[in-house]
Amino acid sequence: MISVEEARHRILADLHPTPAEIAALANAWGRVTAVPVIARLTQPPADVSAMDGYALRAADGTLGAVLRVIGSAPAGHPFEGSVGPGEAVRLFTGSVVPQGADAILLQEDATAAGPEVQVNEAVIAGRHIRRAGQDFAAGDVVVPAGRRLTARDIGLAAAANHPWVTVHRHPRIAVLATGDEIAMPGEPIPRGGIVSSNSHALAALVRAAGGEPVVLPVAADTRDAVAEVADAVHGMDMLVTTGGASVGDHDLVIEGLKMRGLRLDFWQIAMRPGKPLLFGRLGAVPVLGLPGNPVSAMVCAILFLMPALSRLSGLPAAPPPTVQAIAGAPLRANDHRADHLRSTLSTDSQGRIVATPFTVQDSAMLRRLAYADALILRAPNALALPEGSEVTVIRLDLLGI
Amino acid sequence: MISVEEARHRILADLHPTPAEIAALANAWGRVTAVPVIARLTQPPADVSAMDGYALRAADGTLGAVLRVIGSAPAGHPFEGSVGPGEAVRLFTGSVVPQGADAILLQEDATAAGPEVQVNEAVIAGRHIRRAGQDFAAGDVVVPAGRRLTARDIGLAAAANHPWVTVHRHPRIAVLATGDEIAMPGEPIPRGGIVSSNSHALAALVRAAGGEPVVLPVAADTRDAVAEVADAVHGMDMLVTTGGASVGDHDLVIEGLKMRGLRLDFWQIAMRPGKPLLFGRLGAVPVLGLPGNPVSAMVCAILFLMPALSRLSGLPAAPPPTVQAIAGAPLRANDHRADHLRSTLSTDSQGRIVATPFTVQDSAMLRRLAYADALILRAPNALALPEGSEVTVIRLDLLGI
Repeated sequence: MISVEEARHRILADLHPTPAEIAALANAWGRVTAVPVIARLTQPPADVSAMDGYALRAADGTLGAVLRVIGSAPAGHPFEGSVGPGEAVRLFTGSVVPQGADAILLQEDATAAGPEVQVNEAVIAGRHIRRAGQDFAAGDVVVPAGRRLTARDIGLAAAANHPWVTVHRHPRIAVLATGDEIAMPGEPIPRGGIVSSNSHALAALVRAAGGEPVVLPVAADTRDAVAEVADAVHGMDMLVTTGGASVGDHDLVIEGLKMRGLRLDFWQIAMRPGKPLLFGRLGAVPVLGLPGNPVSAMVCAILFLMPALSRLSGLPAAPPPTVQAIAGAPLRANDHRADHLRSTLSTDSQGRIVATPFTVQDSAMLRRLAYADALILRAPNALALPEGSEVTVIRLDLLGI
Repeated sequence: MISVEEARHRILADLHPTPAEIAALANAWGRVTAVPVIARLTQPPADVSAMDGYALRAADGTLGAVLRVIGSAPAGHPFEGSVGPGEAVRLFTGSVVPQGADAILLQEDATAAGPEVQVNEAVIAGRHIRRAGQDFAAGDVVVPAGRRLTARDIGLAAAANHPWVTVHRHPRIAVLATGDEIAMPGEPIPRGGIVSSNSHALAALVRAAGGEPVVLPVAADTRDAVAEVADAVHGMDMLVTTGGASVGDHDLVIEGLKMRGLRLDFWQIAMRPGKPLLFGRLGAVPVLGLPGNPVSAMVCAILFLMPALSRLSGLPAAPPPTVQAIAGAPLRANDHRADHLRSTLSTDSQGRIVATPFTVQDSAMLRRLAYADALILRAPNALALPEGSEVTVIRLDLLGI
């Protein structure tokens, strides 16, 4: 058996970001930049007013002074002339400050009277002027490579005059469920069979993590049926299987894929739920074999598949983010397997996050998994902890899954 | 002026969830349920084994006993007969426990020898058996209405045998930028003009919050041009405008839309950045007018548009989620306007979240907004706070925007 960390390390070390493609900026939210976004212009392009008011020479802006308004410069319509002594130009937030002017008289500090304006509050040179390039200058990297584009990044890339961005392709992840007993939802269920849930949950997880799921037809429980899957995964960035990888008599994924050249890296991890795990290569395609049990499959997907998707997407390879919380119940001593307790979260009177594990942790209970807010991480051989102890949790709500 | 809370309350009170539509389960991740998902079957459908091993009568499972193996029941292939005294049936995780049997002998506690199996560890009646309906029973609500479907919910709905789910429609949000000075990225920029960033950032925010953005052509700075927009918003769930709503001479959104029957609810909010804000109705379509300044527009979108999108999507109407953090710098006393300080986040030696505001909070600095991790909320008239004080923040990273 190997540890969760060792398994994740081995998986991530064997993966590479997908190649780049061009995406329209309007479709680029959530995509990961493959090259930096470099400003194509300077923002603001010239000194501009931060307020509505008048541009003037600071020396003229003394209390009580009366200036002649020689023009107006709405945003987008710069005043072409120059502001001389005793003169002012009406302007607005974003208006270019005309030549000659070095101060802004705020609208609320001015009294307009016909062609003149009176100064009711002395101006300060440079105040309320945004300098050219205050936000960014042409040539600046405004968005680095390897960043998942936020709505704010999209606005910034637009302002930097980019209608297109170069991003990593969505990782295409083939999802394979195996088993004679599996039916798709709404289809006839064989006697003794169950409705497939893993492939749908995993496809949704792939989508949540920025991948593109390709759900393969369910493979029957024969080596040959599984072997045929090898032909279906050309061009995929990963094959994820569920089930068929435990130690029973009916574990055919490995045998079937080995007929087509699967090279296996490991398959037993010291963790609960989800001990059996497979990682290898089928030709060029990485293969991640998750347990068939739905809760185990999902926990393993959080621990291994989501980091793999990050790596394939061009993001830094990292374990799922954790936060500290307070145990809402005593925790038993752990055995040699890392445990992941399905828990609810609440907030105590001091504003601390409290994680309370469900009393039953059966790995077949999908409803309980769906209602869980977090997984409490229990290290191998962790000692028993009293209620109120600090624990580390993975917040499922924050993962979007 | 009205408060942020009052403004949000008024907006949300005037909005209603979109009607329902049918979505394929495979496309339903992130959608919001309009009706509960009710289990169409019982899971597990019968008592099943939680482990690989043998089904037998508990009375027979004493240490050293040797039982006759009368059959095998792979998952999906139930054993049709009954287990009598001295008999056992081979089974696997998920196999239906045959009639007559009430205990499971684990594979690792058994020695198979031809047609017989020896008990190496006494069994306990009922142990390792998952009871019918342990996860859910037919008729149970497995996913309530008004929930944004997670990957786990998708798995649960699949297991409950739902190929389709009934969800609220994506709110369709028209986004309108106004201004003669505005160019689309990559297009010729008029002299004195700037590249549009607001409509792209807002469209991405709408998408991040589960809406469908419709970016309208930029309206020129005339009342008539703005008025024509009224024809473009039929069937939209909301019109969001940016710019043209301040107190200068060139504030044409209100005047233009009033020509077409805009009923205005309010438009000045005691907040910074982003004081001018407009809310009303254009026929049946709610209209939210955001400031033109890109940082103000985004902060107002976080405070008002995202909650509005939640409400339109069928989710509970609520302010943006906040967390407690430690101020990484002294904070000045605040004036009468609620402030939203763009800040970075870090973690101190005690694991606490530290929020440090940028020293310059200019509302035109889009790059700084993009690099911010959080907004520190400063209430109207809040007192000065020393570094290390507790503050409330909105985490931008967790909003997906």
